[in-house]
Amino acid sequence: MSREPITLRDMGSFHVGGRVVEISGKPEKTVMFSAGGVPARVDPNGAYLVEAMYVQYFLPERRNGKYPLLMWHGGGLSGVTYETTPDGREGWLTQFLRKGWDIYNSDAVERGRSGFAPPDVWASAPHFVSMADAFIRHRIGAAWSNDPAAREGLPGNLFPLDAYDNFARQFVPRWTTTDAAISAAYNALIDKVGPSVLLFHSQAGGFGFPLAQARPEMVKAIVAVEPAVAGDVTQAARLKDVPILMLYGDFIERSARWPAMRQIGLDFAEAVRTAGGTADVLNLPAAGMRGNSHMMMMDRNNADIADLIHDWLTRRGLVA
Amino acid sequence: MSREPITLRDMGSFHVGGRVVEISGKPEKTVMFSAGGVPARVDPNGAYLVEAMYVQYFLPERRNGKYPLLMWHGGGLSGVTYETTPDGREGWLTQFLRKGWDIYNSDAVERGRSGFAPPDVWASAPHFVSMADAFIRHRIGAAWSNDPAAREGLPGNLFPLDAYDNFARQFVPRWTTTDAAISAAYNALIDKVGPSVLLFHSQAGGFGFPLAQARPEMVKAIVAVEPAVAGDVTQAARLKDVPILMLYGDFIERSARWPAMRQIGLDFAEAVRTAGGTADVLNLPAAGMRGNSHMMMMDRNNADIADLIHDWLTRRGLVA
Repeated sequence: MSREPITLRDMGSFHVGGRVVEISGKPEKTVMFSAGGVPARVDPNGAYLVEAMYVQYFLPERRNGKYPLLMWHGGGLSGVTYETTPDGREGWLTQFLRKGWDIYNSDAVERGRSGFAPPDVWASAPHFVSMADAFIRHRIGAAWSNDPAAREGLPGNLFPLDAYDNFARQFVPRWTTTDAAISAAYNALIDKVGPSVLLFHSQAGGFGFPLAQARPEMVKAIVAVEPAVAGDVTQAARLKDVPILMLYGDFIERSARWPAMRQIGLDFAEAVRTAGGTADVLNLPAAGMRGNSHMMMMDRNNADIADLIHDWLTRRGLVA
Repeated sequence: MSREPITLRDMGSFHVGGRVVEISGKPEKTVMFSAGGVPARVDPNGAYLVEAMYVQYFLPERRNGKYPLLMWHGGGLSGVTYETTPDGREGWLTQFLRKGWDIYNSDAVERGRSGFAPPDVWASAPHFVSMADAFIRHRIGAAWSNDPAAREGLPGNLFPLDAYDNFARQFVPRWTTTDAAISAAYNALIDKVGPSVLLFHSQAGGFGFPLAQARPEMVKAIVAVEPAVAGDVTQAARLKDVPILMLYGDFIERSARWPAMRQIGLDFAEAVRTAGGTADVLNLPAAGMRGNSHMMMMDRNNADIADLIHDWLTRRGLVA
């Protein structure tokens, strides 16, 4: 092992938020939980704890990030986004840990280890992400094939194409009707850990920006990695004391949706600056860094991008 | 922080196993992934990667466990089982890490960060665990109430009753029709990490024992924590070279199902011994340790039980 060891003063996990719901009117049933085991009589009625959020934390012995760094993943994914990359390199979780940040990596409500609520509570069905859909939509490839050898990556793309199937293993079902529950749990996380730096990706723009606008005193900086949406431009002044860095990768002009999605971010950044705030936009290709997909935390140059983010946080006075 | 730091030579995660399924015949749809964002046209047909398993690993700098220690959770739960306890103490994951074991903690297929397959692939519905059901079935309490102050714990129970709601936050939906997929992924894990010590709980008895009987050369020892089922008694001789420790907690006689479930384990242990193998059964109350629930890795004396397990593994020659 050629890497330096990682020394932690603590590590662990917890859940935040959630609520108790009561389910009633259902018949008792017999459930065989394990083949060859003992059947159980189960009353499906009663209290269920739903909409809590799972958070895993890693606290380096030599801390120099002044605030906790919260990592929030995008849609159809979980906190695994920030762990080991699909091709087995270090992800941003350990890269920022090595830089001295206290890391809190969570699975949004409904996703991964946060679990999901019974259909009695959430009437709508989950959405499943196909291999082809993410391949195109996340600006990894130009043309999909079930045959890995026949997949066409975007030219110069830095996503580890050979490991795409491992990325597809990370996909988890998602709902499109649970935004309020997800936001409530992120608020509960901030309540627990206190003022923090938010690093969020894609869908989580719809949670991070509104939370920061509602509670700017709890957010010391925002790192928005290709946010799918931004905050309320009419309330941009709420963020005048919260420095923002937005990052965008390559191939946006080739995408059906990303030109408009990026424009939402650019317009919001402009509104924050007009209100006297700091909103830096880092278009990686314009900075000479070509080839990044929507999943830049997994791309081959993910360590270089982590360095850029850490340097920006350092310039903002958030590193001791 | 009064705890000793933890130094890791590596940490990370990966997925193993899974298969590609093709879904066809569905209409295209428009999905609004983020409120205020840009709608996406999505073709739900095509390839989906399902039934992979998420595995997180922590490798201590000072390793002395001779083989990887694989932690497999029980039904309705995920790898969170072995992390921080519901009342915020260290769980077995960090306790065994501090003892020098390479830890691989996984979420069974369908659970947590492993995700679950579309209804086109798994026709059956998931089962949700109510707060009352787990309270009684896992031998934590004698009488449930939605009012925490009115919940009646079993007398002398060591489960952290005040933190029961945090335990309920760990519940994730489960299927009862996915045993083959779960087993396939555990096999893929063994293929990847090689000969290992298996530590499994409850439902995972139905995966760990059969896997060890099929591939005894890949399993160096079994620690079965209240297994809900055991292996094939007619094939007990397959495990004559695989030492087994079974642990059972308190209050079993008060349970509707646990006397019969424990008997399944005792009968299997007896069959292994008759075949010339080692199958030690540790009934904790008989050893003077009273008050353990089914969730003994979370009970107040979880560190004492970890010590007993580590001592047993040491006596079996599995610690350097």
